[in-house]
Amino acid sequence: MTRLWDKGQPLDQRVLRYTAGEDHVLDNRLVRHDVAASIAHAEMLNACGLLAPADLRLIRDALAAIAEAHARGEWQVRLEHEDGQTALENLLTEKIGATAGRLHAGRSRNDQVLAALRLYMREAVEELRAGVNAVADELDLMIRRDGATPLPGYTHTQQAMPSSVVLWAGGYAAELRDDAEGLRMTQRRIGKNPLGSAAGYGTPNLPVSREETRKRLGFATNQEPVTAVQLSRGKAEAQVLFEIALVMLDVGRLASDLILFYSQEFAFVSLPDEFTTGSSIMPQKRNPDVFELVRARSASAQACLMETLAITAKLTSGYHRDLQLLKAPLFRGIDLCLETLAILPPALAGVVFNKERIRLDPSIHAAAEANALVAKEGIPFRDAYRRVAEKYRK
Amino acid sequence: MTRLWDKGQPLDQRVLRYTAGEDHVLDNRLVRHDVAASIAHAEMLNACGLLAPADLRLIRDALAAIAEAHARGEWQVRLEHEDGQTALENLLTEKIGATAGRLHAGRSRNDQVLAALRLYMREAVEELRAGVNAVADELDLMIRRDGATPLPGYTHTQQAMPSSVVLWAGGYAAELRDDAEGLRMTQRRIGKNPLGSAAGYGTPNLPVSREETRKRLGFATNQEPVTAVQLSRGKAEAQVLFEIALVMLDVGRLASDLILFYSQEFAFVSLPDEFTTGSSIMPQKRNPDVFELVRARSASAQACLMETLAITAKLTSGYHRDLQLLKAPLFRGIDLCLETLAILPPALAGVVFNKERIRLDPSIHAAAEANALVAKEGIPFRDAYRRVAEKYRK
Amino acid sequence: MTRLWDKGQPLDQRVLRYTAGEDHVLDNRLVRHDVAASIAHAEMLNACGLLAPADLRLIRDALAAIAEAHARGEWQVRLEHEDGQTALENLLTEKIGATAGRLHAGRSRNDQVLAALRLYMREAVEELRAGVNAVADELDLMIRRDGATPLPGYTHTQQAMPSSVVLWAGGYAAELRDDAEGLRMTQRRIGKNPLGSAAGYGTPNLPVSREETRKRLGFATNQEPVTAVQLSRGKAEAQVLFEIALVMLDVGRLASDLILFYSQEFAFVSLPDEFTTGSSIMPQKRNPDVFELVRARSASAQACLMETLAITAKLTSGYHRDLQLLKAPLFRGIDLCLETLAILPPALAGVVFNKERIRLDPSIHAAAEANALVAKEGIPFRDAYRRVAEKYRK
Amino acid sequence: MTRLWDKGQPLDQRVLRYTAGEDHVLDNRLVRHDVAASIAHAEMLNACGLLAPADLRLIRDALAAIAEAHARGEWQVRLEHEDGQTALENLLTEKIGATAGRLHAGRSRNDQVLAALRLYMREAVEELRAGVNAVADELDLMIRRDGATPLPGYTHTQQAMPSSVVLWAGGYAAELRDDAEGLRMTQRRIGKNPLGSAAGYGTPNLPVSREETRKRLGFATNQEPVTAVQLSRGKAEAQVLFEIALVMLDVGRLASDLILFYSQEFAFVSLPDEFTTGSSIMPQKRNPDVFELVRARSASAQACLMETLAITAKLTSGYHRDLQLLKAPLFRGIDLCLETLAILPPALAGVVFNKERIRLDPSIHAAAEANALVAKEGIPFRDAYRRVAEKYRK
Repeated sequence: MTRLWDKGQPLDQRVLRYTAGEDHVLDNRLVRHDVAASIAHAEMLNACGLLAPADLRLIRDALAAIAEAHARGEWQVRLEHEDGQTALENLLTEKIGATAGRLHAGRSRNDQVLAALRLYMREAVEELRAGVNAVADELDLMIRRDGATPLPGYTHTQQAMPSSVVLWAGGYAAELRDDAEGLRMTQRRIGKNPLGSAAGYGTPNLPVSREETRKRLGFATNQEPVTAVQLSRGKAEAQVLFEIALVMLDVGRLASDLILFYSQEFAFVSLPDEFTTGSSIMPQKRNPDVFELVRARSASAQACLMETLAITAKLTSGYHRDLQLLKAPLFRGIDLCLETLAILPPALAGVVFNKERIRLDPSIHAAAEANALVAKEGIPFRDAYRRVAEKYRK
Repeated sequence: MTRLWDKGQPLDQRVLRYTAGEDHVLDNRLVRHDVAASIAHAEMLNACGLLAPADLRLIRDALAAIAEAHARGEWQVRLEHEDGQTALENLLTEKIGATAGRLHAGRSRNDQVLAALRLYMREAVEELRAGVNAVADELDLMIRRDGATPLPGYTHTQQAMPSSVVLWAGGYAAELRDDAEGLRMTQRRIGKNPLGSAAGYGTPNLPVSREETRKRLGFATNQEPVTAVQLSRGKAEAQVLFEIALVMLDVGRLASDLILFYSQEFAFVSLPDEFTTGSSIMPQKRNPDVFELVRARSASAQACLMETLAITAKLTSGYHRDLQLLKAPLFRGIDLCLETLAILPPALAGVVFNKERIRLDPSIHAAAEANALVAKEGIPFRDAYRRVAEKYRK
Repeated sequence: MTRLWDKGQPLDQRVLRYTAGEDHVLDNRLVRHDVAASIAHAEMLNACGLLAPADLRLIRDALAAIAEAHARGEWQVRLEHEDGQTALENLLTEKIGATAGRLHAGRSRNDQVLAALRLYMREAVEELRAGVNAVADELDLMIRRDGATPLPGYTHTQQAMPSSVVLWAGGYAAELRDDAEGLRMTQRRIGKNPLGSAAGYGTPNLPVSREETRKRLGFATNQEPVTAVQLSRGKAEAQVLFEIALVMLDVGRLASDLILFYSQEFAFVSLPDEFTTGSSIMPQKRNPDVFELVRARSASAQACLMETLAITAKLTSGYHRDLQLLKAPLFRGIDLCLETLAILPPALAGVVFNKERIRLDPSIHAAAEANALVAKEGIPFRDAYRRVAEKYRK
Repeated sequence: MTRLWDKGQPLDQRVLRYTAGEDHVLDNRLVRHDVAASIAHAEMLNACGLLAPADLRLIRDALAAIAEAHARGEWQVRLEHEDGQTALENLLTEKIGATAGRLHAGRSRNDQVLAALRLYMREAVEELRAGVNAVADELDLMIRRDGATPLPGYTHTQQAMPSSVVLWAGGYAAELRDDAEGLRMTQRRIGKNPLGSAAGYGTPNLPVSREETRKRLGFATNQEPVTAVQLSRGKAEAQVLFEIALVMLDVGRLASDLILFYSQEFAFVSLPDEFTTGSSIMPQKRNPDVFELVRARSASAQACLMETLAITAKLTSGYHRDLQLLKAPLFRGIDLCLETLAILPPALAGVVFNKERIRLDPSIHAAAEANALVAKEGIPFRDAYRRVAEKYRK
């Protein structure tokens, strides 16, 4: 009997494919960080008398060479490796034989992969912050160019009170800088050293020093007790994705504004040709695709956050293989945000305000008129409000 | 001044990369379906007198050859193509010159891509149904082997009443068959012909026949009016992902049961070596990784659904580039479900019940005893309940 | 030592409050259905010889009286009752003494509450369908009034091709009718009789008949095996909420269109005074609050679906108290959808199209012109496209 | 013709009901904070010469009296009030006549409600922190009682390495304290003064001082520019709900552990009678309902976060009525978390470890043995691992 799921592959291949998933692809971005953490671990073993100086040198040089070869594209983590950790162990063993086995004293794959992941996140968060600030800076340039250009200020998508490019763009710039600060604060959860927790229960009978790896890798604290390490899986990831969701929320709303301003009915802005695309059947069209995709990716960012929270939900304590799946939404979320932050500055640089098209409804000054009555005549605001309302009703 | 986002690439390359996203990768699975829909469209144009028989033959043969070459792996949609539709148009033009341009009469990329997507979904849903039924069938085989084996029936994770493998596995089999039926019903939303709606507003001045493409492609109805087509984007996708979420919910809970039953404390089941993996530092361990990943993927499936709903939320009517991003969560959800359904039958085939370890708490028969009192003595259930409770309190 | 959480209440009160949650409030809407299912259960017991005719009469009359008193507002489920089931049992015991205890033969709270819930859902789905169809009918009336009014058809929020009120409103009406059909299909999962499954493992030693309750309550099938009943918890609920999410998606997008059309820049529509609200400081404002809240509630509807799926995720089989929390998002989702469907017909009835303000960009006919060239001159569409593009570029 | 939605109520009543929603219920918890912010605003007006000292006194005294009456339960925000802001304005006008209208100079409902909301959140976050720390403290007490009790340490729900109550409970205590720190950090986004932004575009013609209200209300900064205020709506709320989701994730996993430990198969713990509930048909059962509901509420908490993010997604800038709906998921999330944090300390205080039932598998020491070989014999860990694995294979 042949079964649906029997696609000719031997069973172990299919199990490998299911359990490894896309790990071999994802882990490539961790190789550099895994090597850094592995070298720190080796140095700690040496400092604790668990690794001879010659063995340390052998391991360190071999790992460095492996990382460089990876950076040059000479090897990639492949499915046969299952994951990046196994790839590194295999390559190291090929290079230096049984000494490679000494590196695994006092360390499990659980704390190894987490150390690499946190080093990666630490760097990614800084890249995200720089990207967010670059968008805010670009908005500042827009203000320098066009700040005085009047814009209607909207509430309920209705013209409400007078605004301007400085107020409009400045609001987004302020919120983006707030997001950059939010991203900075994610470093608190990232900055905890998992090394030394091994599989989650420490390293009985092996006198390792968590402080030695902490200092070398620049973690702010050692995560204590060791059981907290696996319990915390997904939390720093979720916080990074939460702040990414806020960044994407803000730029998604900025995109919504620009798509609206670019409509023929508003026509407040023109967009540069490079940032619009044509239609397959409507020859006259120039569409604001970049901004539409920024808006759409704000939805994807929220889904990355939800996936991360859902994966860890309800799990009993201790490591579970489920946690492996945290990497995919984390990397997806970071990538989509970085790509969006990279495209926005040139896109914003090209926005041209069509001053002659921006029209403020005369009634937009009603609130200011009521305010003036209060200031001048000293009457209660509600009375001023009623008097101005009367005028506009006519 | 060099800017953060300026990574050496010319601007148009960066815009292409951002707008195309991963479309070129994703669209490969649509090529076959796009060709089928394109041929149907060409045949319709011919039937309506808008395409000469010789041109139809030229287009049909060329498209068929392109699809076969793609199936043989001779070409792939690449980033330079932007997307699958452009790739096909380019390849067709290379092969048959300006005649290729006749294929685009009465069709926009909007209805073209949607037609291909719906043909793909139609097929994927059938594959999902077959996979779901295969898991249910495997549970039937388990019942045939071990149905009579007693199991505690749990409520609140507490032994509650006597159960058995036939009840335990049969419950899941029934729910999976319910899911298969749910999947079948998604064909209603999938089975609507989008062709002829073009960019969403029909094909003024071109007397196309939607009925001709509908019949050829086996759609159940023509989607009317044409404006409904783009409004419906994401709805069939979401329904497929919703039913996938239920499938994954069910197999995720099945996995939770088996992980629990496989613990040393329960020890109700043994798992085959091929479906467990070892530990990097604990030599005695055999871990139920496959089932853990089934459980974790049930979380990912829910995120795919949410992403789909969030992408379309609040958009005004008419096509938006946002809709392009629907493909990624759709394909991700379908793939994770198919892969899970493929690994489960062999995994379940290997589950061995350790009859000697399965122990039912004597008090598990309390409800049955109370029932017997009711049946025998005719007393109210509440009195019987109290009498039995008294007995077990001692 | 006094503790933070110690707010003077005795412990059992606090536990009751935490475990009962808002059940006593929510269960009021189930009372009527619980009584219907309880009477069917009593009749079944009688038919199976487990309840004397006189006792049946006593129980039936008392339950009917209790339900009528509840409908008249003479009693409500209160926190002290814990939940609706306990309230009914207590009231019945007050009325008829120990005979009340006979009703609990062959039934657990698990299947009792589920039966009531499914009867409630069956009715709620029909109310939702009627509401959805009423909105579609209102759109038909709008078409009858204003169908011929031209509107720009948009893609990418850009004028693309000519449209009209009949196409615009007709697209939404079609999608809403599609949703009504989707709602109808949820009756499949709802229509399964849970009675007789008791706590999830049947009623050993009691010869009950599931067929007797099935027929009386109009369920399409008996849910088999008994273990499937608790495994299915949340699935029918989720499907109802999924279809609600689609309904709200559609009306949320309709609201987005109208908010846009109501802006001063578009000014395509006027809204009746009753459906706009004023501002606290801007006397000239009339805001489209109703449509904004329709749009916002489409977000809340998606959250109800997610909550439902998340509550059941990863649970082992058998009843868990977690399932109690399914009611809140279910009721919330149903209510917000019904309320939205109730407000939309009068709101849509008041929409006035400002024909003189609706302006179609001349280039909006470009695609039709290209089509005409194809039809008249027989040239490939791509050539016609280029020729028209040339014209509009000037 | 009578319509479905026409339920006898006049239209304006139905619109009010739909737009006010549950605001009148929700706003009761904001009354106290709204009064505080209103008094600060009045004092600022006075300091800026926009309100006479006598009027200030009148307003201040009347507002204080209104707040006290509300605290005593003498009045509630009702549907007729529409919302809390209108209720306050009406009550104040009743008390002091036209002078009440002076309070609305330089303030819109938009910044008024946001000020009250932020004051409320500031307090709620502190309450949440105290609650989280109280649970961590209770875990410390558990450690003091039972810290030395050995427990298996699990990975993959398999016994992996030796653990203990101190490690198990200490891991959760550490993560909870991490959550408390995360909550503390939400004060950054909360601590921004919205007053003076009015409807989102400032107060032209009125020389108000944002610094005067900032100091009085203890906000850390004035939110600048004024347009950032409405853009930031939902962000502080989302961050609070995100940290709540992490708190609930942690206690949900703690609950999962205890539910598992309480199963007959594990039987590691006993639970106090007050924290377990009985069954309606199984007289022997004692169920861990409190912990099941803690676990389930971790799912609800995630949905509150998602709803908040979804409500603000894609909105153009400026206030929209959509934002009103943020309050419901915020309050729901805060309440469910506070209630959970209140019930956990007594529940944890009652957990008794059944030392005699906790059995560690002998092979649980395998990793420690391999470590000892490394430390003693200086062999590579991989060799030690293989040697120990050999031993346990037999």
